[in-house]
Amino acid sequence: MSSQPLKILVIGGSAAGPKAAAKARRMDEHASITLIQKEADLSMASCGYPYYIGGVFDDRNQLICTPAGIVRDPDFFEKAKRIEALVQTEALSIDRDAKTVTCRHLPSGETKTLPYDRLVIATGASPLYPPVPGSDLDGIRTLHSLGDADALRAVRDAGKVTKAVVVGGGLIGFEVCEALHLAGIQTTVIEKTASILPFLDPDLAKLVENHVRSKEADIITHNGVAAFLGENGKLSGVKLDNGTELPCELAVIAVGVRPNIELAREAGLTIGAKGGIAVNDQMQTSDPNIYAAGDCVECRSLITGEMLRAPFGDIANLQGRVIGRNLIEPGSASFPGIIHTGICKIFDFTVGFTGLIEAAAREAGFDIETATVSGLDIPGYMQGKLLISKMIADRKSGRVLGFQCIGPGDASKRIATVAMAIRGNLTVDDLSNADLPYAPPYSLALDHVIVSAHVLENKLLGHMKGVSVTEVKQRVDSGANCFILDTRSPQEFEEMRLGIGETLIPLGALRGRLDELPADKDREIILYCKISLRGYEGAAILQAHGWTQVKVMEGGIMAWPYPREK
Amino acid sequence: MSSQPLKILVIGGSAAGPKAAAKARRMDEHASITLIQKEADLSMASCGYPYYIGGVFDDRNQLICTPAGIVRDPDFFEKAKRIEALVQTEALSIDRDAKTVTCRHLPSGETKTLPYDRLVIATGASPLYPPVPGSDLDGIRTLHSLGDADALRAVRDAGKVTKAVVVGGGLIGFEVCEALHLAGIQTTVIEKTASILPFLDPDLAKLVENHVRSKEADIITHNGVAAFLGENGKLSGVKLDNGTELPCELAVIAVGVRPNIELAREAGLTIGAKGGIAVNDQMQTSDPNIYAAGDCVECRSLITGEMLRAPFGDIANLQGRVIGRNLIEPGSASFPGIIHTGICKIFDFTVGFTGLIEAAAREAGFDIETATVSGLDIPGYMQGKLLISKMIADRKSGRVLGFQCIGPGDASKRIATVAMAIRGNLTVDDLSNADLPYAPPYSLALDHVIVSAHVLENKLLGHMKGVSVTEVKQRVDSGANCFILDTRSPQEFEEMRLGIGETLIPLGALRGRLDELPADKDREIILYCKISLRGYEGAAILQAHGWTQVKVMEGGIMAWPYPREK
Ligand SMILES: Cc1cc2nc3c(=O)[nH]c(=O)nc-3n(C[C@H](O)[C@H](O)[C@H](O)COP(=O)(O)OP(=O)(O)OC[C@H]3O[C@@H](n4cnc5c(N)ncnc54)[C@H](O)[C@@H]3O)c2cc1C
Ligand SMILES: Cc1cc2nc3c(=O)[nH]c(=O)nc-3n(C[C@H](O)[C@H](O)[C@H](O)COP(=O)(O)OP(=O)(O)OC[C@H]3O[C@@H](n4cnc5c(N)ncnc54)[C@H](O)[C@@H]3O)c2cc1C
Ligand SMILES: CC(C)(COP(=O)(O)OP(=O)(O)OC[C@H]1O[C@@H](n2cnc3c(N)ncnc32)[C@H](O)[C@@H]1OP(=O)(O)O)[C@@H](O)C(=O)NCCC(=O)NCCS
Ligand SMILES: CC(C)(COP(=O)(O)OP(=O)(O)OC[C@H]1O[C@@H](n2cnc3c(N)ncnc32)[C@H](O)[C@@H]1OP(=O)(O)O)[C@@H](O)C(=O)NCCC(=O)NCCS
Ligand SMILES: [Ca+2]
Ligand SMILES: [Ca+2]
Repeated sequence: MSSQPLKILVIGGSAAGPKAAAKARRMDEHASITLIQKEADLSMASCGYPYYIGGVFDDRNQLICTPAGIVRDPDFFEKAKRIEALVQTEALSIDRDAKTVTCRHLPSGETKTLPYDRLVIATGASPLYPPVPGSDLDGIRTLHSLGDADALRAVRDAGKVTKAVVVGGGLIGFEVCEALHLAGIQTTVIEKTASILPFLDPDLAKLVENHVRSKEADIITHNGVAAFLGENGKLSGVKLDNGTELPCELAVIAVGVRPNIELAREAGLTIGAKGGIAVNDQMQTSDPNIYAAGDCVECRSLITGEMLRAPFGDIANLQGRVIGRNLIEPGSASFPGIIHTGICKIFDFTVGFTGLIEAAAREAGFDIETATVSGLDIPGYMQGKLLISKMIADRKSGRVLGFQCIGPGDASKRIATVAMAIRGNLTVDDLSNADLPYAPPYSLALDHVIVSAHVLENKLLGHMKGVSVTEVKQRVDSGANCFILDTRSPQEFEEMRLGIGETLIPLGALRGRLDELPADKDREIILYCKISLRGYEGAAILQAHGWTQVKVMEGGIMAWPYPREK
Repeated sequence: MSSQPLKILVIGGSAAGPKAAAKARRMDEHASITLIQKEADLSMASCGYPYYIGGVFDDRNQLICTPAGIVRDPDFFEKAKRIEALVQTEALSIDRDAKTVTCRHLPSGETKTLPYDRLVIATGASPLYPPVPGSDLDGIRTLHSLGDADALRAVRDAGKVTKAVVVGGGLIGFEVCEALHLAGIQTTVIEKTASILPFLDPDLAKLVENHVRSKEADIITHNGVAAFLGENGKLSGVKLDNGTELPCELAVIAVGVRPNIELAREAGLTIGAKGGIAVNDQMQTSDPNIYAAGDCVECRSLITGEMLRAPFGDIANLQGRVIGRNLIEPGSASFPGIIHTGICKIFDFTVGFTGLIEAAAREAGFDIETATVSGLDIPGYMQGKLLISKMIADRKSGRVLGFQCIGPGDASKRIATVAMAIRGNLTVDDLSNADLPYAPPYSLALDHVIVSAHVLENKLLGHMKGVSVTEVKQRVDSGANCFILDTRSPQEFEEMRLGIGETLIPLGALRGRLDELPADKDREIILYCKISLRGYEGAAILQAHGWTQVKVMEGGIMAWPYPREK
């Protein structure tokens, strides 16, 4: 070891930064590795904040400790990883010619300039705020830092707040909503656009909306925050774009994040069109000695090839690890790109997505087919729970482009399954014959993913014509001249029904009662049942008997997000 | 419709047969479709029998009904599917020239000969019996038919049996074991070979064995049944190869199945080398008008290209569906082959597998690398549960060949994930950067599958040298001169330890205590911790300081299946 140890500096001490540092250490015991972290804490599991706030667990240390229970403080980093972690220290500027970073120890105000051979920027992102009056009132927060989590946990522990508003109906917004609900706070989520959860198509998002409402949390869509209202500097309510005023003592803003790119920009590094630091597939910036990862960068979609931002904890760690390898063995590792796979728990629903939603797929220029399918995750005799999903494929190649899955059932497994299928460029036909792990405690004989592929295949082959619940609702509301057929049993019809002018003919009786169907064989007929399996079987019968406009309402009653007669 | 309707005959009325028939009906409303079924019931969910027997549910109809609760009897098949189902009717012979099948109505003894244009053979398999004395005693059963399930459920309901023996330590054997245990019966599983669960490598199988024993069910391996013992025609015990006698009132035989190929063979159809009916990828037998599917056929491994038997309920349904399409549109569908993916619940463990196990991969001629990894499924603060898995890859291409995953954690999702990865021919590198759905209720930031890929990558790149628990045990037992290092904390060491001559040096102290390590830098050093994450980090340190034979005991204490000091 005659050569000088490599000097590595890492800016940002939460996910991507420590991961890069830790991996570099394992690759090279002799390098000098320093982590510069603005906050007091290191390696925070931000994704766990909502569960701490909601009281799922009470020990704050769990957010910053190893699986063996050791808090990841500077002492831990020194001893276990031989990484020098400078906390409460902000990197102020990068001098690329001198290869130095100047930083300030925040408590003391001292600045120092540290040299590097290689530098990692993992500065993450910062929460956005809506630019409206009253934003400085006491009682308005975001949930981004551990400090935010502490403050919101204190709200729970104090037990004084009774009404809260969450601004922003995305993933974090709903996690906060549930956490506050668990704290006994009546919570309303405000979403500016027409639909919550932008990673879902609106049909499915609406079902999640219904579920949240059933838990006695409220949602207002298509309405932004116009102003925060206050008394004596304290928040007392929120005024919406349409003038509604909602009284509340707490508002949590969760309208997204913007990448922290100032340091990089000031150092003259290339910034991408989507506003993140531009990196190549080795996670190298426009300066070959500087790498960047996590919420502050852009990365490539493996589906469209487009650059996008993917502020996710798993991606930050994966990218950090790639950097760790490249710091020591330049060019040895690359990050291929993302599928856009994510998930969240919203009360009793799991809400997951992978790949493109319908709108995004069309925008990317694909000629797509979709299938919306309801069904159980495991057999009824094993207490199976409902899943509702939408699978999207490219018509020409059959390639699967996206999958959304929601419901009380185990959607997580189905999302992971399809995420890997998309990664492998698999087609609907491949998924239709997938060999998955089957036993009654874990799936149906044909798993929900496979059934989804079957239904999508049926649509691609023209064996089934689908119509969405939204389209059916529009037909009904506009008084369209369609014949609507419910193919369930009389008993099921008694217990629950849409009441949209439908006729009941149970599937088993359909062949004997064809004379009750429209004489005009070209009249549109829409069939459904609870999940539209029997609806689909009925449709095949009618088609074979000469009706030409036979459609299945996809997902059936279980996917119907509008009010029902019963 | 001037042409004659197509005449389709299907032999076998449980999974593959009804699926082929039902799909054909949806493809052609006018075909004549007849199902010939020997048993009284149709469409039995055989995979659910253990849960019915164990009292997980009590309504027998749930085994044979649709999700909407309608029993799939001949009346249902007639009304909902317009399929004529001839139950208690055995197909006796096939005349391929005349294109007829002769069958006998079992209750009446009447025979009739039915013509076909296209025929489907879905006769399934029959349970094997060990050829030993006493097999005809009362109290010896298999679990294959619904009749068997009824009989074993009656055992539970009667509550008289106190001791049972299950012959065969495979998937069904352990499902039966758990069901009998739930019925309050003391149960011992007898396995002839050295290791239970042939779809697992022995290291992992041994951990399952320990788990079963912890539930107070017993297992005897490496010992077959020599004879069934009885009094007055009733079973009183089982005698093993080594002479041991186990008293019991019930013995359930679960030593595998053989395909029902007699009809096919007598009709002159080609039988494959593995003993199943030979079919092409359209599921067509050597007679183009005859298709076959399910437990009675052979199919191709997508990994090795070899033909094998895959007696699984999901595969039977998939193949049946492919046939349904081809019956109506010949050549329109094909079944690509299998990965060999399966799963079962064994008490609180999930036990899953996909692809090749280590032994099979070597046998198939692959030059492989493996990684055994222990870790949580979700974060500790969310009450994560343990998973232990082994991932296997081809050294040259990096292609993932197999994955086994067991434990109280959610192994089902991880198996499904890797099954799709294998289907997409993905490599360890691809899995190392997989974009999976991450949120704390569902996974670690880097999912167990990804960590497994990381560890395997480290081994492939030579960053980590592994040693299996079995090898360590052998080293210890043979008094090998290796230095064994536990890198956990003193407190953890106090609570649990192997006691195999190890030295404790916590990871955080290791760099300061290198002088306590062997002076001989070429002496073998084996490191571990609870899961061997810290063991691995310690190994990197020692390697960098010049020790040359540094190895990590894979999976750590959690994967150690032998007795511990504490
Ligand atoms: C409440 C919440 C829930 C989430 N849930 C999920 C989830 O379920 N799944 C998921 O995939 N993702 C989730 N995320 C997103 C995930 O946490 C982020 O994607 C991830 O933390 C990004 O890691 P990072 O290292 O890039 O950035 P960060 O974690 O933001 O870390 C950046 C660090 O850099 C420091 N820093 C910034 N500038 C400087 C400077 N100039 N000098 C020194 N230090 C600096 C910051 O203080 C910060 O600690 C969630 C996020 C939040 C807030
Ligand atoms: C207890 C148990 C648990 C299982 N668990 C699982 C599991 O968890 N996961 C999994 O994937 N698989 C499981 N299996 C296997 C799965 O049930 C079978 O793979 C599947 O049923 C095979 O379907 P099949 O249609 O090919 O054959 P079968 O289901 O065996 O059906 C064949 C039918 O054909 C009839 N038949 C045979 N010969 C004739 C004839 N000459 N004339 C008329 N009829 C005839 C038989 O009576 C039978 O009903 C389990 C099996 C059992 C018994
Ligand atoms: C934890 C953190 C500091 C990274 O440190 P790290 O040392 O790389 O991470 P771990 O302690 O998990 O160790 C992982 C190493 O052990 C290996 N490993 C894990 N389990 C193992 C096992 N059972 N056997 C052998 N090796 C194992 C991993 O492969 C990895 O090594 P590699 O990267 O060289 O392949 C960083 O990820 C972090 O700060 N995380 C917390 C914050 C966060 O992720 N927030 C966003 C999400 S909430
Ligand atoms: C049930 C059985 C008779 C097959 O009949 P089937 O009509 O094909 O099966 P289902 O009732 O599930 O109907 C499936 C059809 O509805 C479609 N479907 C399912 N859910 C749907 C939904 N929500 N919307 C639209 N279509 C749907 C499927 O794609 C399939 O149609 P396709 O094959 O034409 O694509 C056969 O599988 C069987 O006997 N099973 C029980 C025994 C068994 O499987 N044992 C072994 C395992 S325990
Ligand atoms: Ca992800
Ligand atoms: Ca399978």
